Amino acid sequence: MVKNMDIERFEKQLAFILEADKEKNILRQTHLSNHGRRENDAEHAWHMAMMVYLLREYSNEEFDVTKAMIMALIHDIVEIDAGDTYAYDTKALQTQKAREEKAADRIFGMLPEDQHRELRALFEEFEAGKSPEARFARVMDNFQPLLLNNSNGGADWREHKVTRSKVVGRQQTTNLGSEKIWKYTEGLINENVEKGNIIDD
Amino acid sequence: MVKNMDIERFEKQLAFILEADKEKNILRQTHLSNHGRRENDAEHAWHMAMMVYLLREYSNEEFDVTKAMIMALIHDIVEIDAGDTYAYDTKALQTQKAREEKAADRIFGMLPEDQHRELRALFEEFEAGKSPEARFARVMDNFQPLLLNNSNGGADWREHKVTRSKVVGRQQTTNLGSEKIWKYTEGLINENVEKGNIIDD
Repeated sequence: MVKNMDIERFEKQLAFILEADKEKNILRQTHLSNHGRRENDAEHAWHMAMMVYLLREYSNEEFDVTKAMIMALIHDIVEIDAGDTYAYDTKALQTQKAREEKAADRIFGMLPEDQHRELRALFEEFEAGKSPEARFARVMDNFQPLLLNNSNGGADWREHKVTRSKVVGRQQTTNLGSEKIWKYTEGLINENVEKGNIIDD
Repeated sequence: MVKNMDIERFEKQLAFILEADKEKNILRQTHLSNHGRRENDAEHAWHMAMMVYLLREYSNEEFDVTKAMIMALIHDIVEIDAGDTYAYDTKALQTQKAREEKAADRIFGMLPEDQHRELRALFEEFEAGKSPEARFARVMDNFQPLLLNNSNGGADWREHKVTRSKVVGRQQTTNLGSEKIWKYTEGLINENVEKGNIIDD
C-alpha cells in the first residue's frame, strides 16, 4: 500500500522509537529547577542536545553537530534495562558497564541492521569519549545536572553529602571537551563549597 | 577568570537554558505508551528530534538534519508562557498565535542577540512550514503523538471523542513533508476508525 516504503524496515524503526518512550520513566537523582520533581532521562537528553547546539562555540575542537546531538539524545537509552546509575554510587558503578552493554544489544538490536550498528557505535563512542563529538556531548552530560543543581542552591549535593573531590572527579572529562566550560564549572564548584553545599575535603 | 570567554554572553545562554527547563512541566494531552501518564513538552521534543534523525530517509526532500533537529527541540518552548493548545480545541486555537508570539519575544529574547534572531527565525519557519526542515519536523510533530496514541489502543482519541475528519485535518501537513509516512498514517487512521477508536464522520 505504501509507495516505495520497506514496511518491515519502517516497523523496526517504529518499534525502537516506541521502546525509547520508556526512557521517560527512568528517573535521575537530579531535580528540576525551582526545586521541582526528579528529572527523567528523556528530559535530560533533550536539554543536553539543545545545549550541544547552543553552546557549541565553546568546544575545544571543531565537531559534527548532528552527530553530537544524536549522541546526546540516545546516550541514556540503555538505562531502560540497566537503570540510572548515580554518579556518586561507587557500588553500582562497578556493574554499570556490563548491565549497559547487555541493554545496548537488546535495544539497539530492534533497529534495522545499519542503524543498529550506527547507534551502537555512537553509544560506545560517547561512553569512551574518543571523538570531538563524544567529548563535547559529555561536557553537556556533566554540565546540565550541575546547572540545575546550582540553580536549586546545591540541594542535590547537600542531600547526598557530596565532597569537592567527588564533584571534581565527576566533572573531570569536561576539560577534555571544553576548557572554557571547565573554568566556569570550577568557579561554580568553588562557590558551592564556600556556601557549604559541597563538603570541602 | 575564564580564558577567552565572554561571561555576559555565556550567562545569557545559561539563563535561556535554565528557563527552557520549565518545558518539562508543560503537559500535553498525549499519554505515554503502556497507558502511562501525560507526556510533557520536553519529552515530546526529545522524541521528535530522535525521530527526525532516524526517519530522515522518508523525507520528500533533502534537508539539513541539524537544523530540523534543533527546530524540533525548541518548537514548543513558547508554551512555557502560552501553555499547550490541544490540537482539537477550536477556541484555544484562535488565540494561540498571539499568545505564542508574545512568549517567543520574551523567551528567545533571553539569548544573545545573534542566537535570539536565529532561534526566533527557526521557530517561525517551523510554524509556517516553509522549508524542507520545517516540513519534515512537522511530520514528526504529527506522527509522534499518533504513534503513542495508537500504541495505547487509541485511548486519547476515545477520551476526546475525536472524528476522522479532525484527525485527518490535524495530519494534513504530514503529506507535505513525507508522502511515505502520510500513507502509513492513513493506514493507522483507517485501522482506528474500524476499531471504533476514531469516530467515522
